[in-house]
Amino acid sequence: MHCQCITRFGQPLEGQDRADMTPQGSEVILEVLAAGVCHTDLHVREGGVDLGHGARLEYAQRGVSLPRTLGHENVGRVIAAGPDAGDIDISRNYLIYPWCGCGVCAACQSGQENLCVAPKFLGIHVDGGYATQIRVSHPRYLFDIGDMDPMHAAPLACSGLTTYAALKKLGDRPRRQPVLIIGAGGLGLTAIQLIGALDMPAPVVADIDPAKREAARAAGAHAVVDPRDPDAASAIAKACGGAPSAVIDFVGAEATAKLGFDVLAKGGMLVSVGLFGGSSPWPLPLVALKAVTIAGSYVGSLAELGELLDIARTGAIKPIPTVRFPLSEAEGAMNRLEAGGVIGRAVLTPG
Amino acid sequence: MHCQCITRFGQPLEGQDRADMTPQGSEVILEVLAAGVCHTDLHVREGGVDLGHGARLEYAQRGVSLPRTLGHENVGRVIAAGPDAGDIDISRNYLIYPWCGCGVCAACQSGQENLCVAPKFLGIHVDGGYATQIRVSHPRYLFDIGDMDPMHAAPLACSGLTTYAALKKLGDRPRRQPVLIIGAGGLGLTAIQLIGALDMPAPVVADIDPAKREAARAAGAHAVVDPRDPDAASAIAKACGGAPSAVIDFVGAEATAKLGFDVLAKGGMLVSVGLFGGSSPWPLPLVALKAVTIAGSYVGSLAELGELLDIARTGAIKPIPTVRFPLSEAEGAMNRLEAGGVIGRAVLTPG
Amino acid sequence: MHCQCITRFGQPLEGQDRADMTPQGSEVILEVLAAGVCHTDLHVREGGVDLGHGARLEYAQRGVSLPRTLGHENVGRVIAAGPDAGDIDISRNYLIYPWCGCGVCAACQSGQENLCVAPKFLGIHVDGGYATQIRVSHPRYLFDIGDMDPMHAAPLACSGLTTYAALKKLGDRPRRQPVLIIGAGGLGLTAIQLIGALDMPAPVVADIDPAKREAARAAGAHAVVDPRDPDAASAIAKACGGAPSAVIDFVGAEATAKLGFDVLAKGGMLVSVGLFGGSSPWPLPLVALKAVTIAGSYVGSLAELGELLDIARTGAIKPIPTVRFPLSEAEGAMNRLEAGGVIGRAVLTPG
Amino acid sequence: MHCQCITRFGQPLEGQDRADMTPQGSEVILEVLAAGVCHTDLHVREGGVDLGHGARLEYAQRGVSLPRTLGHENVGRVIAAGPDAGDIDISRNYLIYPWCGCGVCAACQSGQENLCVAPKFLGIHVDGGYATQIRVSHPRYLFDIGDMDPMHAAPLACSGLTTYAALKKLGDRPRRQPVLIIGAGGLGLTAIQLIGALDMPAPVVADIDPAKREAARAAGAHAVVDPRDPDAASAIAKACGGAPSAVIDFVGAEATAKLGFDVLAKGGMLVSVGLFGGSSPWPLPLVALKAVTIAGSYVGSLAELGELLDIARTGAIKPIPTVRFPLSEAEGAMNRLEAGGVIGRAVLTPG
Ligand SMILES: [Zn+2]
Ligand SMILES: [Zn+2]
Ligand SMILES: [Zn+2]
Ligand SMILES: [Zn+2]
Ligand SMILES: [Zn+2]
Ligand SMILES: [Zn+2]
Ligand SMILES: [Zn+2]
Ligand SMILES: [Zn+2]
Ligand SMILES: [Zn+2]
Ligand SMILES: [Zn+2]
Repeated sequence: MHCQCITRFGQPLEGQDRADMTPQGSEVILEVLAAGVCHTDLHVREGGVDLGHGARLEYAQRGVSLPRTLGHENVGRVIAAGPDAGDIDISRNYLIYPWCGCGVCAACQSGQENLCVAPKFLGIHVDGGYATQIRVSHPRYLFDIGDMDPMHAAPLACSGLTTYAALKKLGDRPRRQPVLIIGAGGLGLTAIQLIGALDMPAPVVADIDPAKREAARAAGAHAVVDPRDPDAASAIAKACGGAPSAVIDFVGAEATAKLGFDVLAKGGMLVSVGLFGGSSPWPLPLVALKAVTIAGSYVGSLAELGELLDIARTGAIKPIPTVRFPLSEAEGAMNRLEAGGVIGRAVLTPG
Repeated sequence: MHCQCITRFGQPLEGQDRADMTPQGSEVILEVLAAGVCHTDLHVREGGVDLGHGARLEYAQRGVSLPRTLGHENVGRVIAAGPDAGDIDISRNYLIYPWCGCGVCAACQSGQENLCVAPKFLGIHVDGGYATQIRVSHPRYLFDIGDMDPMHAAPLACSGLTTYAALKKLGDRPRRQPVLIIGAGGLGLTAIQLIGALDMPAPVVADIDPAKREAARAAGAHAVVDPRDPDAASAIAKACGGAPSAVIDFVGAEATAKLGFDVLAKGGMLVSVGLFGGSSPWPLPLVALKAVTIAGSYVGSLAELGELLDIARTGAIKPIPTVRFPLSEAEGAMNRLEAGGVIGRAVLTPG
Repeated sequence: MHCQCITRFGQPLEGQDRADMTPQGSEVILEVLAAGVCHTDLHVREGGVDLGHGARLEYAQRGVSLPRTLGHENVGRVIAAGPDAGDIDISRNYLIYPWCGCGVCAACQSGQENLCVAPKFLGIHVDGGYATQIRVSHPRYLFDIGDMDPMHAAPLACSGLTTYAALKKLGDRPRRQPVLIIGAGGLGLTAIQLIGALDMPAPVVADIDPAKREAARAAGAHAVVDPRDPDAASAIAKACGGAPSAVIDFVGAEATAKLGFDVLAKGGMLVSVGLFGGSSPWPLPLVALKAVTIAGSYVGSLAELGELLDIARTGAIKPIPTVRFPLSEAEGAMNRLEAGGVIGRAVLTPG
Repeated sequence: MHCQCITRFGQPLEGQDRADMTPQGSEVILEVLAAGVCHTDLHVREGGVDLGHGARLEYAQRGVSLPRTLGHENVGRVIAAGPDAGDIDISRNYLIYPWCGCGVCAACQSGQENLCVAPKFLGIHVDGGYATQIRVSHPRYLFDIGDMDPMHAAPLACSGLTTYAALKKLGDRPRRQPVLIIGAGGLGLTAIQLIGALDMPAPVVADIDPAKREAARAAGAHAVVDPRDPDAASAIAKACGGAPSAVIDFVGAEATAKLGFDVLAKGGMLVSVGLFGGSSPWPLPLVALKAVTIAGSYVGSLAELGELLDIARTGAIKPIPTVRFPLSEAEGAMNRLEAGGVIGRAVLTPG
């Protein structure tokens, strides 16, 4: 097998040839058909995330050892299974749930492996799909995608799931009033579609990039706003029919976190999803005085991925644009994403 | 009538004699029997709250005009009612809900007058109970306290209600694991009692003051922790049976907000109640990566005050200690509270 | 001998009786005649200082062991001297330089013991003057005060010296334009006097407290400003004849640090002296773009104390008001200072 | 004439053809021979700089109107001069001082036009050298570069001058102990050379990029450090022979500002030059307690550019690598700089 992996943080990926994988116990080995390239992969390659005021989260101190093969948005075909894996239909294509947990902690016991205290996330803590083969610890992490295009299904495991879970956090708020979406990148565009698929009112979208605002409008946004416009706040309130009671921040920078908080209605909810980095910019007393809820959201649970696939199978979600790169150009694909040059989603195809 | 009021922010209260009140429409005039002195009153007298990084919330720019009679924790006896006030039993003592709204905004329409966009809070936006008489706009804000001592009932309108509403925000989290209470002042002690009255496991309590920790232990805390202890975090996790999934911060300082966030389990909730001031100290990416929820909570709704009184009437809440001051010594009572010299609650009795 | 000392951080002082002191080597033992009570003492008793964003400087981790006798502003009379102390006139009263260093580090070698890497500051790292006796390691730390009142001379060792050294940092800036003084407490009032004694133009003074502004005006301020006034910045610029190029912040809170930075002219200097606490609130790019200098200043050197005494002996500095407390009431004196109830300086007299 | 200019913030440059320039009064028109591409140009094209905690400096609100031709590092040949320009040798090549002021404010009067309150900086407030022609208001801004290569001389006007002025701020600190340089990009490499030319001890250099560390070592750094190394601080102290008393931060990010402050000796100086952005991360009390000086530095004065050229003419400064781009590819050159793909300096040549 071949893989593209990090051998040193902050350095380019390195191609390696390794022995073919063989399964143990309940393990399943798949041939990778498509592996999405995600912003998180850029953070892992870099080795950390900015925590604001000069501090940094270091993956090396969070259980991420090297070398590591990236890739957590994977679709594959089963090529081998261990003795305890049960019956698996090897003629199907499977989307792989990558947010696997330890199985024993309270989060895992309650079905939220994505919040596990000792996670084994594919492509982060164990090897992922920037490779020709991938190992999955148990078949319950596999979702049959039927005749969906693997390139379109792969991003559902992270960008799709993250968006879906963030929307669910808002409860019924987005039914009563348009939600404000900050950031019209891949997640923001997916959110517009999911909101439509869920029969919620079309959202208001804020982005500093005119091209992305235009894409959001084309995707069905009720209105688009440039957050650097001096009267952005009043434009948002006007478009939402009053200060919004629901905001999702898909960027996660100090500027977007401030915008989302400042426009929020009393009692409203800001869902924080993006990992751009920095320190929270909110005045503590206003958190209490405005009685707002700030809810961090991180990918989603196994059950939520099942729900999302049910929606996707109805055809209600039009695939976002994807750009295909061969596995050997993983490093180039990441650099293009980093430079902002990817419209939609970059996907590696090892074939 | 006589009142003690702010005539200039940052200056001592001033006693004034005014004409007796007469009611219009649905208004009710009450003779004040007891008026609690609250930390919020110190902020209003000072004119503002620290928002961190050198910024300040100024009450003068938030609809608070002067002169203003403070006092939002009031019990009184009806002495006059307007023609539209309906029948009121003038032989009873009433606790007054002070968090009155405009009646027309979305928050008011949904029963959350405490989140009104144009509030008319008693003792803040309109005159309160540091006086011999008080005006209430409608009898629906009055709760018959039966034979409860007015001195003990008055604080329910703010410190009791705030505590109760904060606990409700946590859902069933405090049933599964002890909640961590930060701050063992009046609100923290009330929380310990309410948690007992609601048959939840006794909480873990953190406070830097050994006397307050002792008071918390005496009130029934499961364990007490000095947050400045180098191994405070592990002591908390041990006492809670794992990293706590529910924390209430009754202080609202940068240090307590940091403590609450740092010890919180993935997926947990931090309820932010205190108004000490400062800027939020949380790394933005960790909000998302830990998938925590930070919920601001501000006093409570009219319905919640009704619920709280139902609990109080069962006798399940032992009154916290109160110290009586005559109305004429309102300024001194506030100074004593500010200096930390009040155990429990200071209450003014105009008689 | 008797002393009042900290036995546990965060707790009241405790009176203790100990054996009389005997000198070794170059040591000198003095009978304490006056010991000033300083804000720093409040921080030490509390155990730490707020560093912003929830962090705290802990004295316990900075070489301050307990029990500790506070007091670094001391005047005394020599009662014993070691064999290597040389000739000392025991009929005189001496002001004691308390910022003693290790003697070997680069700072000490260059005469800046106040910046020593292993300090032995009196009343912080070794025992100070809240006592009937005090030990000084070498007679070079003693300054003959002639017939000055010990109560008036004592504060020169800290509040006087700190003010003098901060002014020196500004170079000749205060000669060309009035300096802006933030904070009209003891240090600010001393600064007004020193500025006069040095024939510099009278300063502009900002303080939120009207009484302190009035005191500053009486002491000779060119103009006084309430920093919470919405047009404080333009009032300051007007009074200074343009944006000030020199500011001293004697408070050291986030709000005052922000004010000082915001009003500063390009190329100007902000001297940061106060230790109120918090995090620096300055936008990094503006530090460079405005080419401002932010100079922290901490007490002063042995040579600077000599210079200051030369000025003081001319009579050019009128003593600031002092309030006398007996040594046994050290705890009460500190509490009064903490509550803001000391006009000028509190001084303990053990007699 | 032709120019490449910003017509809308956040959008690519646009090529425009305009009428040839004609001089008035003391003005001089030059044919541009070389125009350096600077990080500042990226900020101007973007429209602003991150000020931390979600705030942003907007050039539109700082006197920068559009369209604007960028370019402040220019060498040209005189092609026309106004009647009051005096005699100018039109056979020579001139480096243009771009940091021109109003001429009347206090900064301008004291020779520090770079700190002018109403600046007319070339390439920022008035049109610069991304063009075939450039207008200079007075010949005193022109420096004869003799037979220096225009491509090598151009960057002296900004990156060279900025580095030189920052070093001067340190006084004689870099003579006693190696200075710590943070950031080994163009300015850092220039600093290593200037330090050599000024006979100071070779500096210690910190950079997260191994390639840049290697370049720094090749340029003569005494030692290089990866600031993300867990023991970076002790490695720096070891290489500097004790905690450094002089640090220059050529990056200006929260992480580098924190590093520079944390390693600084008591009484030391941190010069802040870079404009990466963010909020200052320093605990306020430590600024005072450590008695450190933080000095912002912004480009340099006319006199300093003269001094720098005197040094350059001696040949003591080896030119840093330059990459030539035709004027028509200004946008591409900026993008390459933004992506980190420029080693040394990109220079436009309009010919
Ligand atoms: Zn992802
Ligand atoms: Zn787990
Ligand atoms: Zn309302
Ligand atoms: Zn209250
Ligand atoms: Zn802060
Ligand atoms: Zn020393
Ligand atoms: Zn002192
Ligand atoms: Zn920040
Ligand atoms: Zn000027
Ligand atoms: Zn430049």
